[in-house]
Amino acid sequence: MDLADCYKKVRQRTEQICSPLQTEDYVVQPVVDVSPPKWHIGHVTWFFETFVLKPYFMGYQEFNANYNYVFNSYYETVGNRVIRTDRGNLSRPTVADIYQYRAYVDEAMAKFLHQEPSAEVKELLILGFNHEEQHQELLLTDIKYILGHNPLFPAYDAAYVSPKAEEAISPGFIKMDEGVYEIGHTGDSFCFDNELNRHKVYLNTYELSPNLVTNAQYLEFINSGGYHDFRHWHAEGWDWVNINKVEAPLYWHSIDGEWQNYTYHGLQPLSLKEPVCHISYFEAYAYASWKGLRLPTEFEWEAAATKFSWGKSWEWTESSYLPYPGFAKAPGAIGEYNGKFMVNQKVLRGASEVTSPGHSRITYRNFFQTHLRWQFTGIRLAR
Amino acid sequence: MDLADCYKKVRQRTEQICSPLQTEDYVVQPVVDVSPPKWHIGHVTWFFETFVLKPYFMGYQEFNANYNYVFNSYYETVGNRVIRTDRGNLSRPTVADIYQYRAYVDEAMAKFLHQEPSAEVKELLILGFNHEEQHQELLLTDIKYILGHNPLFPAYDAAYVSPKAEEAISPGFIKMDEGVYEIGHTGDSFCFDNELNRHKVYLNTYELSPNLVTNAQYLEFINSGGYHDFRHWHAEGWDWVNINKVEAPLYWHSIDGEWQNYTYHGLQPLSLKEPVCHISYFEAYAYASWKGLRLPTEFEWEAAATKFSWGKSWEWTESSYLPYPGFAKAPGAIGEYNGKFMVNQKVLRGASEVTSPGHSRITYRNFFQTHLRWQFTGIRLAR
Amino acid sequence: MDLADCYKKVRQRTEQICSPLQTEDYVVQPVVDVSPPKWHIGHVTWFFETFVLKPYFMGYQEFNANYNYVFNSYYETVGNRVIRTDRGNLSRPTVADIYQYRAYVDEAMAKFLHQEPSAEVKELLILGFNHEEQHQELLLTDIKYILGHNPLFPAYDAAYVSPKAEEAISPGFIKMDEGVYEIGHTGDSFCFDNELNRHKVYLNTYELSPNLVTNAQYLEFINSGGYHDFRHWHAEGWDWVNINKVEAPLYWHSIDGEWQNYTYHGLQPLSLKEPVCHISYFEAYAYASWKGLRLPTEFEWEAAATKFSWGKSWEWTESSYLPYPGFAKAPGAIGEYNGKFMVNQKVLRGASEVTSPGHSRITYRNFFQTHLRWQFTGIRLAR
Amino acid sequence: MDLADCYKKVRQRTEQICSPLQTEDYVVQPVVDVSPPKWHIGHVTWFFETFVLKPYFMGYQEFNANYNYVFNSYYETVGNRVIRTDRGNLSRPTVADIYQYRAYVDEAMAKFLHQEPSAEVKELLILGFNHEEQHQELLLTDIKYILGHNPLFPAYDAAYVSPKAEEAISPGFIKMDEGVYEIGHTGDSFCFDNELNRHKVYLNTYELSPNLVTNAQYLEFINSGGYHDFRHWHAEGWDWVNINKVEAPLYWHSIDGEWQNYTYHGLQPLSLKEPVCHISYFEAYAYASWKGLRLPTEFEWEAAATKFSWGKSWEWTESSYLPYPGFAKAPGAIGEYNGKFMVNQKVLRGASEVTSPGHSRITYRNFFQTHLRWQFTGIRLAR
Repeated sequence: MDLADCYKKVRQRTEQICSPLQTEDYVVQPVVDVSPPKWHIGHVTWFFETFVLKPYFMGYQEFNANYNYVFNSYYETVGNRVIRTDRGNLSRPTVADIYQYRAYVDEAMAKFLHQEPSAEVKELLILGFNHEEQHQELLLTDIKYILGHNPLFPAYDAAYVSPKAEEAISPGFIKMDEGVYEIGHTGDSFCFDNELNRHKVYLNTYELSPNLVTNAQYLEFINSGGYHDFRHWHAEGWDWVNINKVEAPLYWHSIDGEWQNYTYHGLQPLSLKEPVCHISYFEAYAYASWKGLRLPTEFEWEAAATKFSWGKSWEWTESSYLPYPGFAKAPGAIGEYNGKFMVNQKVLRGASEVTSPGHSRITYRNFFQTHLRWQFTGIRLAR
Repeated sequence: MDLADCYKKVRQRTEQICSPLQTEDYVVQPVVDVSPPKWHIGHVTWFFETFVLKPYFMGYQEFNANYNYVFNSYYETVGNRVIRTDRGNLSRPTVADIYQYRAYVDEAMAKFLHQEPSAEVKELLILGFNHEEQHQELLLTDIKYILGHNPLFPAYDAAYVSPKAEEAISPGFIKMDEGVYEIGHTGDSFCFDNELNRHKVYLNTYELSPNLVTNAQYLEFINSGGYHDFRHWHAEGWDWVNINKVEAPLYWHSIDGEWQNYTYHGLQPLSLKEPVCHISYFEAYAYASWKGLRLPTEFEWEAAATKFSWGKSWEWTESSYLPYPGFAKAPGAIGEYNGKFMVNQKVLRGASEVTSPGHSRITYRNFFQTHLRWQFTGIRLAR
Repeated sequence: MDLADCYKKVRQRTEQICSPLQTEDYVVQPVVDVSPPKWHIGHVTWFFETFVLKPYFMGYQEFNANYNYVFNSYYETVGNRVIRTDRGNLSRPTVADIYQYRAYVDEAMAKFLHQEPSAEVKELLILGFNHEEQHQELLLTDIKYILGHNPLFPAYDAAYVSPKAEEAISPGFIKMDEGVYEIGHTGDSFCFDNELNRHKVYLNTYELSPNLVTNAQYLEFINSGGYHDFRHWHAEGWDWVNINKVEAPLYWHSIDGEWQNYTYHGLQPLSLKEPVCHISYFEAYAYASWKGLRLPTEFEWEAAATKFSWGKSWEWTESSYLPYPGFAKAPGAIGEYNGKFMVNQKVLRGASEVTSPGHSRITYRNFFQTHLRWQFTGIRLAR
Repeated sequence: MDLADCYKKVRQRTEQICSPLQTEDYVVQPVVDVSPPKWHIGHVTWFFETFVLKPYFMGYQEFNANYNYVFNSYYETVGNRVIRTDRGNLSRPTVADIYQYRAYVDEAMAKFLHQEPSAEVKELLILGFNHEEQHQELLLTDIKYILGHNPLFPAYDAAYVSPKAEEAISPGFIKMDEGVYEIGHTGDSFCFDNELNRHKVYLNTYELSPNLVTNAQYLEFINSGGYHDFRHWHAEGWDWVNINKVEAPLYWHSIDGEWQNYTYHGLQPLSLKEPVCHISYFEAYAYASWKGLRLPTEFEWEAAATKFSWGKSWEWTESSYLPYPGFAKAPGAIGEYNGKFMVNQKVLRGASEVTSPGHSRITYRNFFQTHLRWQFTGIRLAR
């Protein structure tokens, strides 16, 4: 597929994700970590306008100079911006305005891509596609929160196909030998800067479960009082549980003594076979501790990832999000992409049911703060 | 005009106020004091459904049982409700849903009003009309904040007619004699419970300005350093100024050395002749102190109100919002209307450019906390 | 008694109040409203040094220039100061240092008072005495909080004589006639600026209880669920109760099913006959509302105060703390004494068991914010 | 030296550290991370009473049952405790009370140690000695903050001997070969549980500076605008700098254009040759980024530590504080020692000028949150 087609396909998928939404659903921001869908669809457009069209497409006329202020996410290099907590306070530009903006930029991009771009621009385009795919995942995640936080619990889309719960692959653990392993991306295909450089790590003998922890298994933890026993928690996690009165994963509601789970189809009885999801790192750690086991490191995960199936939910690892040896930020605004978040976050590995097809890979590193739960986060055990 | 016509007229005016809005403008809540327009139009409808239709219209079918949770403002008697800070986080019910709710309730009300209601219900209806008029004022005030807070500074309505700035009525002060005055509502016409009982107060000799303080006069205060001189401020006001870095009224923007003022027509050069507006009580007090004068009490204001023209902006008084002698709350939910706010608020008298026609009167008591500025609040001086 | 003797007597009483303290008790500040005793004894000394010795005693050498920074309370005119929340974070100057400071200033004052001071200085001296008496009351109040907040509940002083609980004076209410009353200080004796000007107010017929509400009566309110019934509370009070999980007056502890009350003698079984004390305005209002009665205004209180005995605890009134007609601040730092606090506070009338002898009077106006409880605050009912 | 002598020596050193203090210095807690010295000296005593005397010394009478509540630091297993922010609000027990408590426990310990303890108790004793040494370091660190935060900037002790600033050891970097290294404690001597298990790590070729960054070098960073250039900072660090208006290391004061540094001798002109100290991880990272270099990992540090001199200040590493392979918590309260803090903290390696002699070692792992500065924290560069 050529770049113009790739561009079109990525852009269409974003709009398809939004097609079941009401205009109002595009606007709100119920918590700081969630962005309004209209912000996402404007921001990914702004990315192509700012990093491709404005510097490389001679004679391009900016759509609206104020949009830089509105749709810049966190690039200090590119100037001031709406503060993150204010994204849900903006009724303008309207959804229709932003779709016009998309159409305007898409038209310019189509013209721009009539000619084969330089290698430098190609790299930016592929980064832009991957960037938009990341926001597709965020869009679906944020939409779930926006609707799931609503007291009417509306469904997102009756036609949404949830992944099927599978039988556990095997009851045992996968054994891995002690030794030196190579970690990080290799080859010519796209990867983010945080997957480089490929380097060696020494791993002790370890074992990984081929299966994710299920809702049924997590219920045992709840029913045995896991949320009320400090011994399983980090001190910071224990504070978090008590201040926020956490008693179950996000989206679980105990209604008339039955656990209901908010899904893209609205509230549904909890499916016991499915992987537990929407838990914080603190909860993942506490569950593992209660089982007398632990979470894998990201290196253990990557070294073994060909031996189990993954992609149902992002899996918390014990690893902190840190640069690999020889990691270097790109110069300019693009260099703000990953490096500046490498503190006080945990690495997640895998992918989730809402990850764009083909977007993840074995060396992919996602990362979140330890208290966050709105992502599709799950648990794989190690020992 | 009969009650059915009154009902229709009040309801139409609410919808007319919203007619220039985009769907997105109905949804957001940029600060806690502002409610999303869609919440207002749902809440005033809920008021008629809850206090008139459900108890008095035999066989009425509630539109949606969840709406009680969504549109209850603060009536503890009527059950749980969305917390105030969450109003702007709800994308559903949509604007279209709420207009359907309005139509449904309006139709039921039309049927209900075919028959002459009882005296008890009449009283509730008139309270409902006045309640909706209060929300009309709030709607316009909140819409101004929603659009004026937006970095694009969109106009509300090109057709909106702003009140004309007038020449000062007279340069002198109105003198009032010492003695006993009667304060509070009298007669059979509607008033809120907080305007009762009519009672006597003793006033010393005092003088009131017939004019409101203008933007030109307030600019002198700014230019002479009034915001940086602690001597004019209450201790609590001085903290407020410094923590919030307040330097001018809300909606004033200094752009390239010129003062611009956000209005319903968007940003406009500051009109010097108009009354200063959108200031907190702390600022009103500081301005008066800087002039060597003071704010009037609400009793001084009411006793003199026939002698000057008012209605441009709500005027801060020195009076705290307290019950009049013999004040009694109504039983049940309606009794939560006024009494429970009678602490740590200041009384405002008059009316503003966005007050519904005929809604205010000389005995009317509005009230806000001392730091609030999003209302059309102004200054009249006394000595 | 001449001024030098008055000075000595006031100063000695302050030191006598502190005599049962351990050095450590002088240092801590468990909540922002409480000041460390060492700060009080330094501050009242600084008052005489700053406002009397430095401007009026030729050749006086300041004890330590840094003390202005440490012991200034809130006088913006006099320069920067330690922020209030930091008072309990200062280990230096030590208690011994501050007693040296006191001795140094006392010696200078003794010399200064060898000569008859001017009328202007006399006025400052008398203000200084009254100021120190106010801090004596605060010292005792703050010491109670410091020790009562300690998990060991140490007694302040075994020799402390608590006031005796008295039988109720009379079961009925005192009736007062409608009409014009004069309010405010009159005569040549000392008063604070907030007691002026004497002026007329018009009062409707009203009745006042001759007795304060007792612990026994307040227990009925608790036992009937008063803290859990929103109908008796201001909206702001209801939030305060719920956020702070308030269930009883400050210093009440339910231990093995019995109410214990922290006193200057340590924890004691609750004395049912004594006036209820250490309650917020919110609680006083809710109690009155629960009884179907109300709190008096400060004017009702003053007009009737000769008809009942008072002085056990400061009594919350319904009146907000506002300037009397013609109130004027003194020029300079002394003018910061009262006026700048006249917002969002309620007036208390009377005096408490720890008020310095002769310090209060019928026209005296104390004032606190509506949520505060560490003062000896009580309830007198009106209707 | 036998255990009884060791005990005596450790305990004496604690008291010696406190000997220059005034009583008031023992009491205050200016920020949550600092504990009052009297709390430290009580807590280390409570440790021996709780974990040694009560379980192992037949017939031991607890000194005061309330002290468990007062001096428990964070052991959930051992029951409730004073919340951390309240430590500075307690005037009782007094300093004299706590020294009595120390004497009482020391006497019991002396008796208890007449007999050779079991191996299990020996281990606890050695843990207790190391625990007290940790608190000796904290005592000196906290005392510096308590006095350095005081506007009078009192000296701690004129007799305190500061370490001498040395010439840089060598201008070059130490080169380390790629390969597998062993990390973690080995042998029979004491170590904390977080230093185990000894395990292999793979390190790429790297270079370490033999010298710590000096004040002179750090000044260049300040003078070149390092605190105002977002490119060098983590996103979270950049927020921290801006919210807290950080412009220099803790204890640096720019007075009349000259940098002064608060030391144990009071304010002193900044010594340019000394290692920069009292900086957060965020600042250490930003400095390294500005130099185009980086911080070492804890593994790089340990592998090279025999090749340079260390012990002037704790050195921030890039490593997050995580368990080593096979790390296991001890059962019971002692198991709360380290593991529950292994999240959102960075590892520091080395020791500081106030570390007790012989307390640190090459495998020692200290840890703090990324924003903390009151410890003696410094920078060693890697590449």
